[in-house]
Amino acid sequence: MFSEESAKLGVTYPKGFQAAGVKAGIKKSGNLDVAVIYSDREAAVAGTFTKNAVAAAPVHVSKAVVATHTARAIVANAGCANACTGAQGEADAAAMQKIAADALGCGVQDVIVASTGIIGQLLPMDKVEKGIHAAVKELSPHGSADAGNAIITTDTYSKAGTTSVVLGGKEVRLGIIAKGSGMICPDMATVLCFITTDADIDAILLQEALSEVMEYSLNMISIDGDMSTNDMAIVLANGAAGNPKITEKNADYEAFKGALLALCQGISEKIAADGEGATKFITIHVKGANNFADAKTVGMSVANSPLVKTAFFGEDPNWGRVICAVGYAGVPMDPNRTTVKFGGIPVYAEGVGAAYDADALRAVMTAHDIVIDIDLDDGAAEATVWTCDFSYEYVKINGEYHT
Amino acid sequence: MFSEESAKLGVTYPKGFQAAGVKAGIKKSGNLDVAVIYSDREAAVAGTFTKNAVAAAPVHVSKAVVATHTARAIVANAGCANACTGAQGEADAAAMQKIAADALGCGVQDVIVASTGIIGQLLPMDKVEKGIHAAVKELSPHGSADAGNAIITTDTYSKAGTTSVVLGGKEVRLGIIAKGSGMICPDMATVLCFITTDADIDAILLQEALSEVMEYSLNMISIDGDMSTNDMAIVLANGAAGNPKITEKNADYEAFKGALLALCQGISEKIAADGEGATKFITIHVKGANNFADAKTVGMSVANSPLVKTAFFGEDPNWGRVICAVGYAGVPMDPNRTTVKFGGIPVYAEGVGAAYDADALRAVMTAHDIVIDIDLDDGAAEATVWTCDFSYEYVKINGEYHT
Repeated sequence: MFSEESAKLGVTYPKGFQAAGVKAGIKKSGNLDVAVIYSDREAAVAGTFTKNAVAAAPVHVSKAVVATHTARAIVANAGCANACTGAQGEADAAAMQKIAADALGCGVQDVIVASTGIIGQLLPMDKVEKGIHAAVKELSPHGSADAGNAIITTDTYSKAGTTSVVLGGKEVRLGIIAKGSGMICPDMATVLCFITTDADIDAILLQEALSEVMEYSLNMISIDGDMSTNDMAIVLANGAAGNPKITEKNADYEAFKGALLALCQGISEKIAADGEGATKFITIHVKGANNFADAKTVGMSVANSPLVKTAFFGEDPNWGRVICAVGYAGVPMDPNRTTVKFGGIPVYAEGVGAAYDADALRAVMTAHDIVIDIDLDDGAAEATVWTCDFSYEYVKINGEYHT
Repeated sequence: MFSEESAKLGVTYPKGFQAAGVKAGIKKSGNLDVAVIYSDREAAVAGTFTKNAVAAAPVHVSKAVVATHTARAIVANAGCANACTGAQGEADAAAMQKIAADALGCGVQDVIVASTGIIGQLLPMDKVEKGIHAAVKELSPHGSADAGNAIITTDTYSKAGTTSVVLGGKEVRLGIIAKGSGMICPDMATVLCFITTDADIDAILLQEALSEVMEYSLNMISIDGDMSTNDMAIVLANGAAGNPKITEKNADYEAFKGALLALCQGISEKIAADGEGATKFITIHVKGANNFADAKTVGMSVANSPLVKTAFFGEDPNWGRVICAVGYAGVPMDPNRTTVKFGGIPVYAEGVGAAYDADALRAVMTAHDIVIDIDLDDGAAEATVWTCDFSYEYVKINGEYHT
């Protein structure tokens, strides 16, 4: 379902969407830094936002748009997070929204605003304004790649994906662009996730689907356990596919939600694999838990352990650190029933280390993609968490003096 | 109260205690690795232990000793944690206890057992046995330094301290040795904390005092957020000071608890400052919280943020990462009322970055000891957390292939 070919089209894969990314001079690197995504007709909108009490100005502005249930466009910049910027920051986010609305000829409350980059600095509004005008002029059905590149910061590449599903005989398309890298507000990070679809769906159901899908996709990533002030996932559904409008939780709703989940899980894997300084992509499957929350807690405890992450950087099959992180997760577990596997090879069982083929385990540990299986043998629930290792490069990226 | 001079005596500063540390060949380095601490008379005992569900065998054995309320000795080894070692590990911990009891001529249930080092490996019992016999022969009133060195792993130095308090006209002494470094079970870490005192105090009250003091000292340290399978704090009180026995929560109890707190806070600062790979010692004061738990949660959220820790390694006054970690701590906070200071210099106030003298702030950030003050301006409770930065060396220490 996650097509690499159509993924080049990203958010312009669904009918009726255009996008653009331009260089406005906000990033010190001079790279693309202002993105606009535009629907040629009114779209249902849904969004999920950072739970950080210190939310950035664009989060406040965009929450108000989502509350209206409809939108037409997304305007985003990288290089400056417009976070911890006080009343001026709120005014700047509102100005960014109005500039885009005027340029696009739509209402102010039709424009979602997002920012990512350095915290505590004011937006250079002259550059932002010129950038938005330039991006609106360049809007095209082939602009998704530029838009994707305009929202990245320390990401080493732009993440995009597409999928489709047939609803009532009509092909419904979905596209996504996202950025990740560090999970955080710091100088250079945030998760931004913009999804477009030509599905016709009620905005309330769209919100329910997005909120549920996020629990099993973006919220299952951990790079460093930090939560940004600017995190935002937005979906615009413009109905251009002409499917029978989804107004209840019927089979079409479930099929759409499934497609949305596949799209978001695919992008989650890409974000985790491109974590700051990552040399390994680690998938943690937890099963045998009493409920999903417990399974997720165990997976996140392992994913957030600096000692687990540095061990995988060192290609060290250190199951002791993994079972230790399982043990302190705060979830009831029996050390004698829990098993741990690396790449399918049992390394811990019945309370002790398991005998293993050292060559086979070395092949697992030296690969880029590593799967950790943890079975608590206590219930039927499971969860999957995606993470990466902790390298010298992570310390370098985040220990450099930016200010 | 925390005397550096008498600290050389550590756990043998209180009357009636002897200690020793010997080389038994358990550590690959060949350094001291078996310690014994001995009281010449029966002592009240109290202990706090790791909450990790995957607790090591010596933790189980020592919990049973603490349940009897009396003990005479502590036997400990470094180089092998005897964790995740199954039934054989339990038998080995019990054997270690019996070997020491026989050599000391006391009961089996009088001996506390502790181990730290590599997880998942069985104790080399022949070496352990010879080491215990050698240590018992070397017991002396000047053996605390050797005992302290015999329990360290990746610590760069042994931690010790002493203090005293006059109770009912009698000088009551307290001594401590401890190890820290990583907070974890991994190959090479664990917090072990052994306290001796010649106070005469009821064991139940001793336990209450220890449990309360731990909440404000050892439990306020974070190196990397991991919790070891082997963590243990033990206090032996042998009554040799001849003070009026403390049997109720009177002024003597409060004075004794205060001395115990000073001792444990002093050692906590040393453990945090010697965190694996640490180049900075960071004290985080949180005030203006509604209760202690909230204040601690905020402090720990900041202390555990890899982005905060790498910023301090880079001497980057990145208040954005600090306020971000405050924001996602899960404690109610108003970004516009919260203030953050580095080394007494306001860096964040009224929702935005504060103007500061760059030279003065640079002097703060380049110092080894840095204080972060966070005022939530919402209540009267406060808490202090100690941590360190996150360096290349941390990744190196923990990313090296040990197995």
